[in-house]
Amino acid sequence: MYRKLNEECGVFGVFSPKTENLAEPVYRALFALQHRGQASCGIVVNDRGVFSQYKDVGLVPDVFNRQILDSLGDGNIALGHVKYASKSNLERSEAQPLVVKHVKGPMAISLNGVLVNGAELREGYELNGAIFHTACNTEIISYAITNHRLSQPSIERAIEQAMYDLKGSYSMLVMSATKLIAVRDPLGFHPLCMGRTEDGTVCFASESCALVGVGAKFERDILPGEIVVVSADGVESIKTHCGQKTGMCVFEYVYFARPDSVIEGCSVHKARCRAGEFLWKEHPCEADVVIGVPDSGLDAALGLSLASGIPYGIGFIKNKYIGRTFIQPTQAQRSDAVRIKLNVISETVKDKRVVLVDDSIVRGTTCARIVRQLKEAGAKEVHMRLSSPPFMNPCYFGTDIDSRDKLIACKMSLEEIAEYLNVDSLGYLSVESVKKLAPEANLDFCVGCFTGEYPIEVPEEIKKDKFCRKIGETDAQTLNKELEIS
Amino acid sequence: MYRKLNEECGVFGVFSPKTENLAEPVYRALFALQHRGQASCGIVVNDRGVFSQYKDVGLVPDVFNRQILDSLGDGNIALGHVKYASKSNLERSEAQPLVVKHVKGPMAISLNGVLVNGAELREGYELNGAIFHTACNTEIISYAITNHRLSQPSIERAIEQAMYDLKGSYSMLVMSATKLIAVRDPLGFHPLCMGRTEDGTVCFASESCALVGVGAKFERDILPGEIVVVSADGVESIKTHCGQKTGMCVFEYVYFARPDSVIEGCSVHKARCRAGEFLWKEHPCEADVVIGVPDSGLDAALGLSLASGIPYGIGFIKNKYIGRTFIQPTQAQRSDAVRIKLNVISETVKDKRVVLVDDSIVRGTTCARIVRQLKEAGAKEVHMRLSSPPFMNPCYFGTDIDSRDKLIACKMSLEEIAEYLNVDSLGYLSVESVKKLAPEANLDFCVGCFTGEYPIEVPEEIKKDKFCRKIGETDAQTLNKELEIS
Amino acid sequence: MYRKLNEECGVFGVFSPKTENLAEPVYRALFALQHRGQASCGIVVNDRGVFSQYKDVGLVPDVFNRQILDSLGDGNIALGHVKYASKSNLERSEAQPLVVKHVKGPMAISLNGVLVNGAELREGYELNGAIFHTACNTEIISYAITNHRLSQPSIERAIEQAMYDLKGSYSMLVMSATKLIAVRDPLGFHPLCMGRTEDGTVCFASESCALVGVGAKFERDILPGEIVVVSADGVESIKTHCGQKTGMCVFEYVYFARPDSVIEGCSVHKARCRAGEFLWKEHPCEADVVIGVPDSGLDAALGLSLASGIPYGIGFIKNKYIGRTFIQPTQAQRSDAVRIKLNVISETVKDKRVVLVDDSIVRGTTCARIVRQLKEAGAKEVHMRLSSPPFMNPCYFGTDIDSRDKLIACKMSLEEIAEYLNVDSLGYLSVESVKKLAPEANLDFCVGCFTGEYPIEVPEEIKKDKFCRKIGETDAQTLNKELEIS
Amino acid sequence: MYRKLNEECGVFGVFSPKTENLAEPVYRALFALQHRGQASCGIVVNDRGVFSQYKDVGLVPDVFNRQILDSLGDGNIALGHVKYASKSNLERSEAQPLVVKHVKGPMAISLNGVLVNGAELREGYELNGAIFHTACNTEIISYAITNHRLSQPSIERAIEQAMYDLKGSYSMLVMSATKLIAVRDPLGFHPLCMGRTEDGTVCFASESCALVGVGAKFERDILPGEIVVVSADGVESIKTHCGQKTGMCVFEYVYFARPDSVIEGCSVHKARCRAGEFLWKEHPCEADVVIGVPDSGLDAALGLSLASGIPYGIGFIKNKYIGRTFIQPTQAQRSDAVRIKLNVISETVKDKRVVLVDDSIVRGTTCARIVRQLKEAGAKEVHMRLSSPPFMNPCYFGTDIDSRDKLIACKMSLEEIAEYLNVDSLGYLSVESVKKLAPEANLDFCVGCFTGEYPIEVPEEIKKDKFCRKIGETDAQTLNKELEIS
Repeated sequence: MYRKLNEECGVFGVFSPKTENLAEPVYRALFALQHRGQASCGIVVNDRGVFSQYKDVGLVPDVFNRQILDSLGDGNIALGHVKYASKSNLERSEAQPLVVKHVKGPMAISLNGVLVNGAELREGYELNGAIFHTACNTEIISYAITNHRLSQPSIERAIEQAMYDLKGSYSMLVMSATKLIAVRDPLGFHPLCMGRTEDGTVCFASESCALVGVGAKFERDILPGEIVVVSADGVESIKTHCGQKTGMCVFEYVYFARPDSVIEGCSVHKARCRAGEFLWKEHPCEADVVIGVPDSGLDAALGLSLASGIPYGIGFIKNKYIGRTFIQPTQAQRSDAVRIKLNVISETVKDKRVVLVDDSIVRGTTCARIVRQLKEAGAKEVHMRLSSPPFMNPCYFGTDIDSRDKLIACKMSLEEIAEYLNVDSLGYLSVESVKKLAPEANLDFCVGCFTGEYPIEVPEEIKKDKFCRKIGETDAQTLNKELEIS
Repeated sequence: MYRKLNEECGVFGVFSPKTENLAEPVYRALFALQHRGQASCGIVVNDRGVFSQYKDVGLVPDVFNRQILDSLGDGNIALGHVKYASKSNLERSEAQPLVVKHVKGPMAISLNGVLVNGAELREGYELNGAIFHTACNTEIISYAITNHRLSQPSIERAIEQAMYDLKGSYSMLVMSATKLIAVRDPLGFHPLCMGRTEDGTVCFASESCALVGVGAKFERDILPGEIVVVSADGVESIKTHCGQKTGMCVFEYVYFARPDSVIEGCSVHKARCRAGEFLWKEHPCEADVVIGVPDSGLDAALGLSLASGIPYGIGFIKNKYIGRTFIQPTQAQRSDAVRIKLNVISETVKDKRVVLVDDSIVRGTTCARIVRQLKEAGAKEVHMRLSSPPFMNPCYFGTDIDSRDKLIACKMSLEEIAEYLNVDSLGYLSVESVKKLAPEANLDFCVGCFTGEYPIEVPEEIKKDKFCRKIGETDAQTLNKELEIS
Repeated sequence: MYRKLNEECGVFGVFSPKTENLAEPVYRALFALQHRGQASCGIVVNDRGVFSQYKDVGLVPDVFNRQILDSLGDGNIALGHVKYASKSNLERSEAQPLVVKHVKGPMAISLNGVLVNGAELREGYELNGAIFHTACNTEIISYAITNHRLSQPSIERAIEQAMYDLKGSYSMLVMSATKLIAVRDPLGFHPLCMGRTEDGTVCFASESCALVGVGAKFERDILPGEIVVVSADGVESIKTHCGQKTGMCVFEYVYFARPDSVIEGCSVHKARCRAGEFLWKEHPCEADVVIGVPDSGLDAALGLSLASGIPYGIGFIKNKYIGRTFIQPTQAQRSDAVRIKLNVISETVKDKRVVLVDDSIVRGTTCARIVRQLKEAGAKEVHMRLSSPPFMNPCYFGTDIDSRDKLIACKMSLEEIAEYLNVDSLGYLSVESVKKLAPEANLDFCVGCFTGEYPIEVPEEIKKDKFCRKIGETDAQTLNKELEIS
Repeated sequence: MYRKLNEECGVFGVFSPKTENLAEPVYRALFALQHRGQASCGIVVNDRGVFSQYKDVGLVPDVFNRQILDSLGDGNIALGHVKYASKSNLERSEAQPLVVKHVKGPMAISLNGVLVNGAELREGYELNGAIFHTACNTEIISYAITNHRLSQPSIERAIEQAMYDLKGSYSMLVMSATKLIAVRDPLGFHPLCMGRTEDGTVCFASESCALVGVGAKFERDILPGEIVVVSADGVESIKTHCGQKTGMCVFEYVYFARPDSVIEGCSVHKARCRAGEFLWKEHPCEADVVIGVPDSGLDAALGLSLASGIPYGIGFIKNKYIGRTFIQPTQAQRSDAVRIKLNVISETVKDKRVVLVDDSIVRGTTCARIVRQLKEAGAKEVHMRLSSPPFMNPCYFGTDIDSRDKLIACKMSLEEIAEYLNVDSLGYLSVESVKKLAPEANLDFCVGCFTGEYPIEVPEEIKKDKFCRKIGETDAQTLNKELEIS
């Protein structure tokens, strides 16, 4: 619910010193990363070069059961993936990890990212006889690696060479018969970290929160551009592509990542509290209580409360039994939909001036409904605060932002939005402040969706395609489905 | 997760002035009441005397789908029920509403409550030739009503007479071919309220939060002892049994009810905040942050924070994709189980003196694990506060409390508990304070589980039975399952 | 496919000298009896008075799986049931065995039969305060037994007394805490037999074919009117109601029972072969090959071939993967439906004069399609032979015959039927011959559906009800479904 | 049940002059071909170049439902496939049709066959950078076609060239954006035929029986080596590879194909009847009745009866509700397994000398059980006749014969087999006769599994591999599963 933007994916990989049941820890890790992708998921277990896989559309606890986990058998390396929903990847055959066999043996890939030169690369491979089974970037990358593998002495060296071909964002894990390899694109768009258990098992995960469930301790973030190879010989780092300009997606802090994750040395919870502080400084107001929209607005609301001295309140109850099979009311009753998931605690807001904090606004319809609920519950005033700047531009690196004609910030002025939402004041976080959310992180941020300036050149035909894209019926359904499951 | 106590049930009924799809609003209402029972659920739709029903074990969104809702057809009266899990009622045949046919036509009953003289009544009916299909009190009540119905002019008069026979707690809804009847026992153990939509549809629900999802406005609570009859002739109230001594379960405020519900004029959220205030007054301490255990400890934590001036913090992230099918780790990895569902935000507690607020402790094992997580995350001190007194006695009226030999408060002194939990201080709310949580409510409370004094006489054989009861393997499994789904 | 008539049910019960897994043999026995009922099924296992049950709509292999069978636990007595589909019993709550608790303990009943005085009995019980959960006769019988149980020293004596109240057909099994009891109505409408394994386990089954799968040897048929009681004390027979006029349903031999069953000393296969012989004598013709409609026409076709000397041929291939989930073609393509299930082997019939044997005709539509297939495949002539007389009357004892306005034999003359079916000659078995199909059986037959004369008086209001009954949309759907699953 | 040998697959394709719902006719055709493969199935619908697919493990009626068929949408070309079970292809990702995208657009392939030079071809493609997603020959063929496609003007010309590379058996259908192409290997190992409906829709199917269900008339068999191209321009035949030596699998007539199919001008039913005649001539005996083992032994039994004058009998009843979910008895009760599926009609065999006809014997265990059942039912003598010669050699072209150490004919002499089976005489059809089963067919037969002489050279390493292959646990399970579903 209230997922307005879609993350590319979550990845997890594990390399154990001994052969054991690895499907179970990967399952738990994927469950911890479920917020990064709810469309499909998969696990591949590697038992001395023999890969067993299971993938399907659906949430992790719905796709896997004890029997399926057991059927994957034991192994010493394993890979997992959760994928977000878009029109083109709802098919089971598009689920990851992608498993292929090539001249040097089997390979599995879990990818979080998007190539900006994917179409171009694909055409080249096809003209050389390549066959594609999917529409996903992962298969393109698998050809990029394989093509270099024919002339390189090892898979990591093939990856090193392939990185010269790949343009875009890619935090990915590659599993060969004997190695687990973590790769992060030079700009470091998306996070990727490494952990280790007491018995020497090495894990890689999109976020540190996935390490906890498998009993691993966070060790470090993978550097932008780094290749980390784990094999029986230990852990090796290849830094050929490191040290370039970086541009991590700032929205990981604002919305995507889980608050208990620590990315690039900065607690996500802390970054969001900071957003609340900045918001207060930029947009102060008189009020009696500060409340956040569950779940992503809560931390910033607390930060704003602490900074302002206005008491923090629990303004909403979210139904904790929400699952993806909840039956939508028929059209006539649709206006009730939001009330099934989120209810106002009248006691908190009645006769009060309320500061309402959320992370962002996409189309504004859900937000308007929430404000109406608050007013119906007796709120005297509602002051809306958003912990990010307005969305004005597409993202080419993994965030599935609506087309411009759907974005409220592209269609209305600040005053018009405030009027549409029926709020008494409206304040977005400034671009300047959003860049300062994670001072602990030692890299630059991509704020292209706010400013239109991207850290890497985007081909013109992709730009055009994105700009013209209309949301079809199916996308809308996907979006609705998406609303259901979070 | 962290459901230590089980509520008897949630009930919902609707009477519409016209024939329409009623399964859908009942479905939504049951979803809002899901916290009152996760074992089984059911809906019965009444189309001019023809009852269509569907019941099964499982959560509301898992049991019902569009096809099943549609198969129930249209009607002008409907009844729903959610039921909690205990060993004896996990069978599908024990799910409610109970539908029976008797000499005067069909009847359906949804019950929240427990009779203390159930066994005695049942034996009497059996000696007169009665046959029982279930082990539930609802069937006993159906005989009580039917027996009087043979000589009474109407079903409501039969109910009025039957109430002289029934001893115990019963907030229930009875549907006949043409009427919907709400009944609350004279002591008013469990809540039951009435709402109305703009088009004149009348609803009854265990809690007011269920009214919101169906577009109804709260109208009033059913009085202890009252019978409210809705028919084509309007709404009629029978108060023969009203005005006696009352004894509402105080744990409805502490734990069972949803914070956005208002019961007997008192907001549940407010009552819990008050518990936090009282806790601060009774057990002050030096600390840097106050955090609550999600979800039931959050309100009291906020109350304690406001009363003490110690900042409120968000201490935990609960995985929002938890469903009942989550695969348990195998024994070797079981200690990881709690970490899958609940993770500490280190940023909040590191190097801090933490006040940890929860509603109650049953066995103490989960609580001890949570404290350990906090200390591992760097908490310097943990001061545990419970928003209710220690459980020392069984409940005979619907709350499924563990047997005494499992209750930590029956086995250990306060100091021993603190040591077991590894907390730096431990404070329970006093019995005196717990009685003051809802001063707005115009009735007395039952605090028998804390004091052993009950508002109604309990037969000795029931007492003995409860005291001796040991938790068998199956109950433990049930409990585990229960942990999964909340 | 081609199930034109519906049998009431199949019953199975087992009493073992030791406690063991009984769900599995009952499962296998029900699977062998599946042809007697495809709508719902159930198993109840009795472990020293504690009954565990599982029932649902669907075929035996679809309803039960390993987990469910295991969940029923061990026991020393068990009961099973398969039920046919009619409009009123498609609900899960109507599935049998019926399990109830009454003053003398638990009781489960599996019934094959129909009471003609059911409505009258029910009304009487209701006026004494009885409550009904189902619409089935089994619950009426449970009250009949319980009512007498209050004054009788044992359940078998209560059954003995109840039999004075019950009018109609009932081959049934009753399980108490310690006994398994087989009961057959005095007229012996439906079969019921007893078997025994080498280790002393006693079984009762609707047909002897169910004994094979559980390793039991056929011992004897239960006599019309007999009560057989199995307990730890051994096997006891009560013959108070034996020795009266009998009237077994002759259609058990013609169609219902499985050819490998032996009923009342007569092989069903043999009886059907005899039907073929009689048909040849009554309706000889010139032809080149005799073929039967699978599966129920095959035996009579073989009998006719042997009697006539006309070669037997394999005329049809039935798709062996037919299951109940096969998707019906949409309306435009519906004429293809029969070809999916049954295909002609052209080689057998091309340029030949064909004798086509089936057991009976109800509406004639399917039969007409089959004849058309044969002609399209090149059959020169088709001579239709039916191994039973024309259906002209309703059945009140368990066979679900269409209403008269649907029965082709009630609407058309023999010549008109032949023309409608497009056959070159048409011959039904005579009523005289059908009575001689099983000379080995030492009892009389009911041929009421052919003659309108029944062995027991049928109340006028039931007659009227049956006569006027129109087949509604739902019945038609049921029929279609029924076609699917056989 | 009693499937001793596994066929490679069944294929079906349809090209319609207009865009319409094609998933449904393909579904019906696959259902008719289900006997050729029960492990997995799939359908691909082509709507002007956009391919929609659905594939999964399981039987056709279990995998597909109305919703899935509808989700495939309309189209004017469609392809289907059913696949047999072996250890390596039970994964969902191995199901066909295989759908790939290459430089010239999308392509889907359904294959019935096995390449003997598959490993060699694959290695070559991999050394050129190819990536493989599956272990199946179909993917190798897709590369063979694609590689030539880069230099050929059309897909049919690419196929024509690719056929020079492919060695082995392949009856296959290829779908491009605009064409449906049927291809049969030059030896014509497996059947492939063409049909047409009145409205001009062209169909291709492994067997003619699949045409009936979709309303198409058989037109002709595809020639060995022929390529038939259907497009908007009509039907074109490419015969470059025709006219070579042929070697059709004779076991198609003996066992694989459905009796109502006509292959190469010869009715399968007729061929089997002939086998019965030949058997009688080669192995006459004195007997009272001839019975066949359902279903594949029935036709030969009838042929033997007609030739010998010994009456034909119905000896067995096969449970018609057998589905793949039937729960296996636990080990202790396993000997009962065969009795659940197949029961003897004692009446037919008691006190008689029985000729028992089956198509073949693999390991002999099931056969021995059947003979035991007959003797227990009172058969005085059992004379076993097999309508094919003994299996002594592996098959490299699609039939999954057990390894030599499992084949009873490789381990025992004729006398020893007779003794093991406990039959009074035993007769196999001679190799000479088996070659004469289908004189109408204008091609030669492969009888390599009987003689060890194959119509095409088999690489030594493949021979070695087959010879050494041991049946592992998993294969045995597969076999058991296979037994269940037929």
